[in-house]
Amino acid sequence: MKYGFAQRVRYMQSSAVRDILKVVNKGEVISFAGGLPDEDMFPVEAMRNAFHKALTAGDNKALQYGETEGHRPLRECLANRMKLKGIQRSSDHVLVTSGSQQAIDLFARVMFNPGDIVLTENPTYLAALQVFESYEVRVVPVVSDDDGMDLEDLEDKVKRLKPKCVYVVPTFSNPEGKMWSLERRKSLLNIAKKHQVVIFEDDPYGDIQFEGQGSYTPIAALDDENKYVLYTSTFSKTVAPALRIGWIVGPFQMIRMMAQAKQATDLHTNTLSQVAMVNLMNDFDLDGHIESLCHAYKERMLVMKDLLDSIQLEGLDYVEPRGGMFFWVRMPSHVNTAALLPQAVEKGVAFVPGSPFYVSNANESTLRLNFTHAKPELIEEGMRRLVAVINETRETVFPS
Amino acid sequence: MKYGFAQRVRYMQSSAVRDILKVVNKGEVISFAGGLPDEDMFPVEAMRNAFHKALTAGDNKALQYGETEGHRPLRECLANRMKLKGIQRSSDHVLVTSGSQQAIDLFARVMFNPGDIVLTENPTYLAALQVFESYEVRVVPVVSDDDGMDLEDLEDKVKRLKPKCVYVVPTFSNPEGKMWSLERRKSLLNIAKKHQVVIFEDDPYGDIQFEGQGSYTPIAALDDENKYVLYTSTFSKTVAPALRIGWIVGPFQMIRMMAQAKQATDLHTNTLSQVAMVNLMNDFDLDGHIESLCHAYKERMLVMKDLLDSIQLEGLDYVEPRGGMFFWVRMPSHVNTAALLPQAVEKGVAFVPGSPFYVSNANESTLRLNFTHAKPELIEEGMRRLVAVINETRETVFPS
Repeated sequence: MKYGFAQRVRYMQSSAVRDILKVVNKGEVISFAGGLPDEDMFPVEAMRNAFHKALTAGDNKALQYGETEGHRPLRECLANRMKLKGIQRSSDHVLVTSGSQQAIDLFARVMFNPGDIVLTENPTYLAALQVFESYEVRVVPVVSDDDGMDLEDLEDKVKRLKPKCVYVVPTFSNPEGKMWSLERRKSLLNIAKKHQVVIFEDDPYGDIQFEGQGSYTPIAALDDENKYVLYTSTFSKTVAPALRIGWIVGPFQMIRMMAQAKQATDLHTNTLSQVAMVNLMNDFDLDGHIESLCHAYKERMLVMKDLLDSIQLEGLDYVEPRGGMFFWVRMPSHVNTAALLPQAVEKGVAFVPGSPFYVSNANESTLRLNFTHAKPELIEEGMRRLVAVINETRETVFPS
Repeated sequence: MKYGFAQRVRYMQSSAVRDILKVVNKGEVISFAGGLPDEDMFPVEAMRNAFHKALTAGDNKALQYGETEGHRPLRECLANRMKLKGIQRSSDHVLVTSGSQQAIDLFARVMFNPGDIVLTENPTYLAALQVFESYEVRVVPVVSDDDGMDLEDLEDKVKRLKPKCVYVVPTFSNPEGKMWSLERRKSLLNIAKKHQVVIFEDDPYGDIQFEGQGSYTPIAALDDENKYVLYTSTFSKTVAPALRIGWIVGPFQMIRMMAQAKQATDLHTNTLSQVAMVNLMNDFDLDGHIESLCHAYKERMLVMKDLLDSIQLEGLDYVEPRGGMFFWVRMPSHVNTAALLPQAVEKGVAFVPGSPFYVSNANESTLRLNFTHAKPELIEEGMRRLVAVINETRETVFPS
């Protein structure tokens, strides 16, 4: 039997890198590859209480079918949290999603016809590219520097290509870990207004800050009219990924349309976990917990940074992340990091080569390192292994 | 700002019926409209224990990111449960989904190009039609009787239209509550083999049986080669809908492709709920629980049947359901049930008019009644109200 799959499945192939990393998860390898929080830091006791409370409420509503838009009290809590970030929206403008990955998918589903254009950074979040491609969207990269997109290239492409959307991860981005300047944020919004383009602001990492909370302004907070920006975030990095609770806020018309699309995809997000999240926010110091996460992850970032600094290799370059979960490392241009990965895995350490994050013109000498999952001791050991591999490479690539 | 939505959103409009039913959920109306299980029958104590256990395991893996295919021990439990139904598949052929709704959506996503053809019963599951339409699939109904699809019409349409899939709900179907005969099941499979067409067997209600367990053979159980049938089911009717845990079993190549599609849509299903479901199945008599559900729901079905039988109205017709959650009632052909709904709601009772369940040639005199959500006393009271409305209608429509 030959199955006649849809054309879009050609964008759903597993990558060679993923196959290598599948092996990694089973062995003694120290992995800096995934984007995982440390499970030992999950607020497990508070979650136990939150679920117990949800399961002793008496009316069992937490176990019944729920509204597609999300559990109303959770939407209200989320609207309040958004206000603390300067995003003034009512709970009617909030859609609870099954992780922020689903927010990207639902947005694409209601927005794109085949051939539509999206502008993105380059590199950008790999799984967003996969979603866009599965809707046969044309993804066009915009030139960027450490402060965000290049405004000239952006406006030129907006004018010329008439994209439906500009997709950005402006805060501690994946994979680059960088932070857009306020000026670039404002300018992106102005360009979007001028040319009537929607901005999709993907912000899963915004709460993982190393310079105190509140050090950035979401682009959505600048959009006073609530017309141009869809903003998505998640509890996957701050509470626990397993719950698959994300949310998206934006113009009512788009949120409503995405809710209608969600109804066909999974009816609604796990109600019990939504009720438990409300309990957690009411009964537990979530912000205190996030603060201790930031403290611990910053320490791990610094351990990794020290070992990166110890590498004596001309052309190796990185920007110290001010939040988030990743170092983005540029190796000397002769090094192909995809070719380096099998050697690294053999030595007991893994990373993600940078190429798959690029829309085009991939810099094959880049790699991404996660510093949140491994404990500081393991980061040290893993980085020592990585340094050894890089040093060997140097001997091969740059024989003295 | 005018948002340039995708073409597919034209299939995502909210219906007039849904708008009426939204009002219903807020008032004093006794609703037979939804497809809800009774929340008072959820195994809440067992679930509390299952979640507590998942949250005291020590390694916190139940809170971390999980595999897209599903939590491995759950896939094994599901494969074992499928074997009890005669469906011999290994856990590699099982994909855990966020409710069986997602199984339908992922299948459509990997399978259909715009213009592809699906054959269905008529009427059939409304939300499956919505999914198919959102992928711009052409849905073609096959003539059916109480035993299943008419084989001549089926084979004729398979030959002539070359559909990619035949979608069926052969066991206590939604909305008709009917049960395909074994002979029709075998013949559908033979036609699928002969013409190399995939069968999608949607079976959310199969465990809610009123004539003892094991009284039916899934079509998937007849597909010894595991080549032609995708079979989906859910814990929404037997444990609790809130968990959004469904599954699909089928040919490995299709399951793998659907897993790749799932990765882009929500990464994976809520891990904590998956771990809790495994605990529940290990530590709790799930089959005993299902038996007591069947007993209670059968009693409610009989209460509803008695009151349906009390209606003295020529042309009113229904088949007594042998399982599932619904009565499908044909009213005299002069009655338009959509027009009847507002009157019924005014009298304090709600149902779903039958029209939206049809692909074409809707019988506007049909309606669906759910008998699982309301307690027997409320079913009696609700049915008395409905009988009064119908009797009034009779006076108007058929003045004596």
